[in-house]
Amino acid sequence: MDIALLLFPGVTPLDAIGPFEILGRLPGARIRTVAHQPGPMRTQGGSLALLADHALADISHADLLLVPGGPGADAAAADPQITQWVARLHQTTQWTTSVCTGALILGGAGLLDGVPATTHWRAMDNLAHMGALPRTARMVEHGRIITAAGVSAGLDMALELAQRLAGREIAEAIQLALEYTPQPPLNAGDITTAPEDRIHRARHNLNRP
Amino acid sequence: MDIALLLFPGVTPLDAIGPFEILGRLPGARIRTVAHQPGPMRTQGGSLALLADHALADISHADLLLVPGGPGADAAAADPQITQWVARLHQTTQWTTSVCTGALILGGAGLLDGVPATTHWRAMDNLAHMGALPRTARMVEHGRIITAAGVSAGLDMALELAQRLAGREIAEAIQLALEYTPQPPLNAGDITTAPEDRIHRARHNLNRP
Repeated sequence: MDIALLLFPGVTPLDAIGPFEILGRLPGARIRTVAHQPGPMRTQGGSLALLADHALADISHADLLLVPGGPGADAAAADPQITQWVARLHQTTQWTTSVCTGALILGGAGLLDGVPATTHWRAMDNLAHMGALPRTARMVEHGRIITAAGVSAGLDMALELAQRLAGREIAEAIQLALEYTPQPPLNAGDITTAPEDRIHRARHNLNRP
Repeated sequence: MDIALLLFPGVTPLDAIGPFEILGRLPGARIRTVAHQPGPMRTQGGSLALLADHALADISHADLLLVPGGPGADAAAADPQITQWVARLHQTTQWTTSVCTGALILGGAGLLDGVPATTHWRAMDNLAHMGALPRTARMVEHGRIITAAGVSAGLDMALELAQRLAGREIAEAIQLALEYTPQPPLNAGDITTAPEDRIHRARHNLNRP
């Protein structure tokens, strides 16, 4: 199971790291980080960098393609080097997946035309402009393409994928290894029930790390 | 709010990135990654590297110290350069926190002697050997020290801390920004209800990415 994890400037690290931790634990999995060129890739606000080990030009196949999102996803979705690479890998993947605004990059690669898909709630309009059919859901599956909602949704999508790829017992062992028994002390993560002032704060009042 | 995030070889990235995404969004927060020396730090199985931007010697204060765990935590807990740095920073932190086996590093720094604390279920015995009083809980607070359970527990700990540091409205906006409304498709993350065969698989049958 070869997994390619796309990185780009302004990626949101949890979009990538959630699925990395789950899918990377599948027996026989190999995850390779891929970017324009190997080297450090500054994430969202710049407080952190992830290292890409491979250049786009050096990876021509993956069984599973994982495309995270982030503030840099709009630029990545308009970058022909990235979108052509995504479109080329998609030809032979078993699964092509995105987390958060990574869906915009799938859209930029021409994979979502007329396809039901989801993304971060901030980007639903952008997703529609890509020709996709936006859905508010934790994840949306259409053929070989799975799109997940914002940031933390990648954990749930990856656990579902782990179950499909390796069976329930392995997926449950991975969940146990990560102690993924979430107990958030607040209950405000759902855009469908969020009050306007929280949406405003989430858009305008938060730091970008 | 100055946040220092310790990195070391063999760190588990989600231990670090979960709290990074939440605490980094606090208005006015600054997160600095710290390791022996600046540069790439290979995580757990080596499939990924996080870049450290600062050397231990260059960071002498943080309002919040965040110590992740991982397969490299045992070595870090026995490394005087790291443990002396952790002990020094702890003198002036507002909060000193760990995720997963990061608790062993707090223990190695002498911070957990007689202190109730938690860690990944695999490391409860090691934690006791450090002089701590192991507790099975999502997070354990004792004075200025908060320890969280394995890997994904850092998300819940960080959300609780965000609420204490910036108030409920900001913490809820952060939860909404991350769409942290977890919907795992399986229910196997709790060690207190895990069957023996899943524990065995989690210990012995998983890949280390």
